[in-house]
Amino acid sequence: MTKTLFAFGFSFLMMTSLFAREEVISEIFDNALHSYEAYDNLRILCEKTEGRLAGTPEAAAAVEFTRQIMEGMDLDSVYLQEVMVPNWQRGEPEVARAISPRLGTAELTALAFGLSVGTGPEGLTAPVIELDALEQLEALGREELEGKIVFFNRHFDHSHYNTFDGYSATVGARFRGPAMAAEYGAVAAVVRSVTTADHDYAHTGVTRFAEDGPNIPALALSPVAADKLSNWLEKDPELNLYLRNTSHRLPDVLSYNLIGEIRGSEYPNEIITVGGHLDAWDNTEGAHDDGAGCMQSIDVLRIFRELGIQPKRTVRAVMFMDEEIAQRGGNKYADLAIAHGEAHYFAIESDRGAFTPRGFSVDTDDARLEAMKTLKPYFEPYGIHEIFAGFSGVDIVPLKNHYDEVTLAGLHTDTQRYFDLHHAASDTFDQVNRREMQLGSAAMAALIYLVDALDLLVTE
Amino acid sequence: MTKTLFAFGFSFLMMTSLFAREEVISEIFDNALHSYEAYDNLRILCEKTEGRLAGTPEAAAAVEFTRQIMEGMDLDSVYLQEVMVPNWQRGEPEVARAISPRLGTAELTALAFGLSVGTGPEGLTAPVIELDALEQLEALGREELEGKIVFFNRHFDHSHYNTFDGYSATVGARFRGPAMAAEYGAVAAVVRSVTTADHDYAHTGVTRFAEDGPNIPALALSPVAADKLSNWLEKDPELNLYLRNTSHRLPDVLSYNLIGEIRGSEYPNEIITVGGHLDAWDNTEGAHDDGAGCMQSIDVLRIFRELGIQPKRTVRAVMFMDEEIAQRGGNKYADLAIAHGEAHYFAIESDRGAFTPRGFSVDTDDARLEAMKTLKPYFEPYGIHEIFAGFSGVDIVPLKNHYDEVTLAGLHTDTQRYFDLHHAASDTFDQVNRREMQLGSAAMAALIYLVDALDLLVTE
Repeated sequence: MTKTLFAFGFSFLMMTSLFAREEVISEIFDNALHSYEAYDNLRILCEKTEGRLAGTPEAAAAVEFTRQIMEGMDLDSVYLQEVMVPNWQRGEPEVARAISPRLGTAELTALAFGLSVGTGPEGLTAPVIELDALEQLEALGREELEGKIVFFNRHFDHSHYNTFDGYSATVGARFRGPAMAAEYGAVAAVVRSVTTADHDYAHTGVTRFAEDGPNIPALALSPVAADKLSNWLEKDPELNLYLRNTSHRLPDVLSYNLIGEIRGSEYPNEIITVGGHLDAWDNTEGAHDDGAGCMQSIDVLRIFRELGIQPKRTVRAVMFMDEEIAQRGGNKYADLAIAHGEAHYFAIESDRGAFTPRGFSVDTDDARLEAMKTLKPYFEPYGIHEIFAGFSGVDIVPLKNHYDEVTLAGLHTDTQRYFDLHHAASDTFDQVNRREMQLGSAAMAALIYLVDALDLLVTE
Repeated sequence: MTKTLFAFGFSFLMMTSLFAREEVISEIFDNALHSYEAYDNLRILCEKTEGRLAGTPEAAAAVEFTRQIMEGMDLDSVYLQEVMVPNWQRGEPEVARAISPRLGTAELTALAFGLSVGTGPEGLTAPVIELDALEQLEALGREELEGKIVFFNRHFDHSHYNTFDGYSATVGARFRGPAMAAEYGAVAAVVRSVTTADHDYAHTGVTRFAEDGPNIPALALSPVAADKLSNWLEKDPELNLYLRNTSHRLPDVLSYNLIGEIRGSEYPNEIITVGGHLDAWDNTEGAHDDGAGCMQSIDVLRIFRELGIQPKRTVRAVMFMDEEIAQRGGNKYADLAIAHGEAHYFAIESDRGAFTPRGFSVDTDDARLEAMKTLKPYFEPYGIHEIFAGFSGVDIVPLKNHYDEVTLAGLHTDTQRYFDLHHAASDTFDQVNRREMQLGSAAMAALIYLVDALDLLVTE
């Protein structure tokens, strides 16, 4: 009941200010749609720092390039946060070769998963067992799996409208499959790329092994390669697969989160975070994942400055480091926030590609969620219809370790194209549309403006 | 008041059947998202019949290719409608060259507009006057314009969220500008391409001259070319522009609308039309405009057949001919409909690119519009939120010449990318995403299923 009253009371207040606020929102979208800065900077980031996995020289270059962008922006402060990050290295180009006395040999496009160990310089050769689901491992048991290469060939489930749902239904084979196969004595694992596409790019991503469990090489196969292998296995179940990868992990190295901020005029210690992650897979330009999210976050500050919007609270654009491997940047940011005695009011992350925005997921309590939903009328003219309870973003979610009251949000975009390019070499700048990207900047700027100006998330 | 009651009564009925219908809608989307047929056929159409402007051999090949697709589909009938179409020919590649004694010469990317006359084989050379708006013509008058090449350099207006609004605000310079300039004695007109992109492709389109007015060569400049020319004119207002195009019009030729249909079980003489146009600009593959709309329309029939949905009314997929130049196919279809004594219940067109569907525009009376809006709950799970009064499609709108009661609709898609490729060589198959395209097929199939099964548009 209290919740309902809260939402109703709020709606009434909203109506009175709707028309004045609407004008600001319109200016924000207009400014964003005319601007080329974020898009042009993303082009340079993609060209100059391709393959910027945490710990690489390219990642260091990305931090410095982006720091210089921020330094040129008349912000109140620009600074780094030290973060120790994993230093996993892919090594030499992977080899995956199907060898059949009857069918011949076939080279298969493969990519080691992040944190995968190598096969050793000689590679390894073993027979293959093809599975569709993780559950089959237990049924087969060590007897059938020992000494084999397990091939998880689970296809992307296209039934879902939202491709993130299809991804979630499929990605377990990558996250957990290799470790589970290792427990049954498998000598390596290859996994069909988790992608909506049917191309010959392999899609990487991190895979996890227990600290104390067995550890085996784990590689993604492109959809074309997975189909080929499956087809050959049907004709010759006895074929062997030769795998060679020299990936390995070196000691952690120093890297950085990068932060730029506009200081709040009334509550400078209350922080609003808008961010993306600056690291990207070593085999990609990291255009949609997540260079665009970084440049959009900086663009929120540009829009505030250009339109003369002075926030009551401090608004920070945060370029998180190491989202892809171990999420060290996000955790460090949250730990330093509480150590410095900051108050965190709101945070939003853009890490779902620079496609047309469709809505916001919100991770908060019921009352604040209802308050957020009252903002819908501001966004509907821009095709943004969905404000709903949901996960925010990998880099900002650690704030919840220290802040019970913080409201987190994720920018939700049109999901149809994202998994065509996620973690693959097809994630290139030319796949980014300027207007779509700029609508994302505008959506986040508008949301931040509203939650700040209306004190929307303040409760007694 | 009657309208409100109608809508309320309807909503109540809808609620009772919502759950059963929902299941069918879910099956339609699931089927579409798993299918590759329409997408694979679009690839072939783009590869084999590139440049299929009405009257060309490529257009004839497109009709035959698509007829064979339909013949292979177990439809109740597949047939052609004869249509005489304009036969405008581009001729040799256009030349546009800025010539300045001070700056040198610059080759500019240009394309004659559809129906433009040629310059003659020698080309023509004249000084240039740059304008931003059609209104400037009158202010300048014949004195300033006679003997000149008028250069309309109006930029796309990015302020609009919906790029079709930006297009409408800009396209007058192409449609009417050259004819208006000719009235003041201009010898030719060049027009900045009406596009959201900043590339070096020129975007063509039709331009109109009065039957009895003066007729001059009219060409599009690519955005890069327009910027270059504008920049040079600033430095040297006396420069000359050399233009050469050999486009010309030959006598009309015979072509066809192509129709495939599933016969209705209860009201076979009541027609539901779903269509796109098979012709495309001669400089394009016509992937988004509008090969995709054609293949989606056929896909609606495929979905009905595969799911065993038997419509009460006859559902027709219509491939219209000559949307781009003179809309002869759409007019012929409407004229034959009334001549054959058909009843037309509903028609929907897909001609806004195969991007993610966002809604439907509906052209009908208020009561039926309200009825259509009651369908929203069926579509929201698929990201389709917008059912609103608006223009339907160029090919189906002639039905209104003969049918007062027909309800027309247009499939509305995400508009951000469309004018990057509309009428330009950048409209290629690789710019089409299979899932986005299939969601369009599903959205139209679901809408047709609902308006038919629910007798939604029947009024007393």
